[in-house]
Amino acid sequence: MSYAPPDPFGWIDDEAGRRAAAGLVRSLRPRPAEPDLLDLASNDYLGLTRHPEVTAAAAEAALRWGAGATGSRLVTGSTTLHAELEDALAAFCGFEAALVFSSGYAANLAALTALGAPGGLIVSDAGNHASIVDGCRLSRAATAVVPHADPDAVRKALDGHTGRALAVTDSVFSVDGDAAPLAGLAAACRESGAVLLVDDAHGLGVLGEGGRGALAAAGLAGAPDTVATLTLSKSLGSQGGAVLGPARVITHLVNTARTFIFDTGLAPAAAGAALGALRLLRREPERAGRAREAAAALYGGLTAAGLTAVRPDAAVVSVRAPSAEDAVRWAADCRTAGVAVGCFRPPSVPDGVSRLRLTARADLTDRQITVAVSTLVSAAPPRA
Amino acid sequence: MSYAPPDPFGWIDDEAGRRAAAGLVRSLRPRPAEPDLLDLASNDYLGLTRHPEVTAAAAEAALRWGAGATGSRLVTGSTTLHAELEDALAAFCGFEAALVFSSGYAANLAALTALGAPGGLIVSDAGNHASIVDGCRLSRAATAVVPHADPDAVRKALDGHTGRALAVTDSVFSVDGDAAPLAGLAAACRESGAVLLVDDAHGLGVLGEGGRGALAAAGLAGAPDTVATLTLSKSLGSQGGAVLGPARVITHLVNTARTFIFDTGLAPAAAGAALGALRLLRREPERAGRAREAAAALYGGLTAAGLTAVRPDAAVVSVRAPSAEDAVRWAADCRTAGVAVGCFRPPSVPDGVSRLRLTARADLTDRQITVAVSTLVSAAPPRA
Repeated sequence: MSYAPPDPFGWIDDEAGRRAAAGLVRSLRPRPAEPDLLDLASNDYLGLTRHPEVTAAAAEAALRWGAGATGSRLVTGSTTLHAELEDALAAFCGFEAALVFSSGYAANLAALTALGAPGGLIVSDAGNHASIVDGCRLSRAATAVVPHADPDAVRKALDGHTGRALAVTDSVFSVDGDAAPLAGLAAACRESGAVLLVDDAHGLGVLGEGGRGALAAAGLAGAPDTVATLTLSKSLGSQGGAVLGPARVITHLVNTARTFIFDTGLAPAAAGAALGALRLLRREPERAGRAREAAAALYGGLTAAGLTAVRPDAAVVSVRAPSAEDAVRWAADCRTAGVAVGCFRPPSVPDGVSRLRLTARADLTDRQITVAVSTLVSAAPPRA
Repeated sequence: MSYAPPDPFGWIDDEAGRRAAAGLVRSLRPRPAEPDLLDLASNDYLGLTRHPEVTAAAAEAALRWGAGATGSRLVTGSTTLHAELEDALAAFCGFEAALVFSSGYAANLAALTALGAPGGLIVSDAGNHASIVDGCRLSRAATAVVPHADPDAVRKALDGHTGRALAVTDSVFSVDGDAAPLAGLAAACRESGAVLLVDDAHGLGVLGEGGRGALAAAGLAGAPDTVATLTLSKSLGSQGGAVLGPARVITHLVNTARTFIFDTGLAPAAAGAALGALRLLRREPERAGRAREAAAALYGGLTAAGLTAVRPDAAVVSVRAPSAEDAVRWAADCRTAGVAVGCFRPPSVPDGVSRLRLTARADLTDRQITVAVSTLVSAAPPRA
């Protein structure tokens, strides 16, 4: 009798079978170099990813500085290009200092683990991004998840806590495109001496004067008790993330944040591209407003045709679908008609409601917006 | 009487004071574009980061594909360049499939959270990298930390566990440069039907025929119960990470790994650079052996002069220092003499022993190795 070893991944096949039965299989669909669809699905809010100035800045940085950073930022991975980017980000967004990471995910893990601690308290919005949820877990602080966009709930959760405390929120929620009530959250935090941490991934470049972000728009940029995280991979068209805040917080991150200390520095090409995008945004501050106007135009067209959408606070427009199956079919029909849209459904939506997620870009033309609206409306399921 | 709000970051100043008193302050030292020191500190083992073919591949990818991936790999962030890189990595290392991440840190978090689970068991080497430690925590599996490089300890920890189980190890440990006993670990795992997960960050490009990595060297590449993670930021001179394994494991990651689903895809420049480096390594397979020879020559020179070092299993040479203060002064003196070396001290070392960490590169000349050894020896503290 021959010995058959147990199958260590049999459970993976079981899980795959359950996903298939539920119609929830995800798969990759690599796209070509030249866009073949009208893009309403990316987070390239300002249309800068393929801008010749930004791609040239990426290429020049790779040729001049090398293809990689070669090590941890604390060993060989810090170049004067990284320092220049950090200075430019802090100055643009109105903070004392900035620290760049290889992703926004890593930036959130760093901020939450370095500022949270066992014995401390983190109050987290129920709609926060996965990287915030993971950062709360890694911090080993007690985490109170509070109802979405509710400063009173944050106030109550902070009330009576005597140790270190921090409230964390996305500035603009990725799924529905709604903005957090930052003024109310800041007031709630100040009542109890808590820190406010805001992930401005979807606000930078879109909100605030010239795209300086949600914290600048709320008058919170540079506040001594406020820290921001952001991404270089959305409005800035590149890759990476950053933490912005008081200089002593940034120094603390350099000394303690594991996703900073034990990660290779951001590639020079990504740093160069983000710097190029910031230069361009300073010169063309009107891009921020154009992204918001395009979102408003998409929302107006879709709701005028009877579809149910969330009024956009930034550049994300969320459109309700009757069911997960309808959402998938609707997105597929739009794609067939030449328009790429995002499709969010359980388990990626906090409330179980499936929707299409459209993103506006500053460089969408009126004609493209008209085409997008009519495509969405024509392909809409009967009950949408 | 005016109200003075409490200082939410007073504790940061307290911690900074304690670090300063202990001589453990870390600070960034941005370097210029043109190297001004002999580099024995980076992880650019094959000397490819600044290789014209690799930097040209990065630049071309940015110009052709854009500066960023524009979204999650599941939405707009997958290009055919990413697919090409994943195919090339899997083929080169001998695995069925591969999945690319924005960092090796993210790849380890993905593999551990997607393969570990509440109720499961992860057996982790005491010397494993911070990203493995964080991945164990995020997985919510029970984690047993076992003595360093000890297959019997792994066997005992796995013994009797009936649910899902996984043992995880670095292939080459970053601090001391010693290799994990992969054959023994694989045997221990197979006895109990556990999965073996190996982080080959410091083995890829250096170990195995033509640099195919530690798993290929151990005859474990492509095994049905073995998964590898690796980085694109060391031997491949770029940025990013990857998970390699059976196709069903990769499909499982696409569907469940949070650091894959909720992160922006790797920037095209980084994907292009890694592909360029892989092409170069296929054409010049002797680079792997040259990196190992350079490490052996450094080790030989240093120990012949009476210094205490760990015999290198790959391209990292670890040299003992009498104390943390000695290590810092030694590294600084080397830097003054034009040689950059890494300096590891508590709390970044698992055993409390401070050391200098030298990395060999395939493109080090005999003359550079001689200069490096004589600089290290001249600057050595009296008791080293």
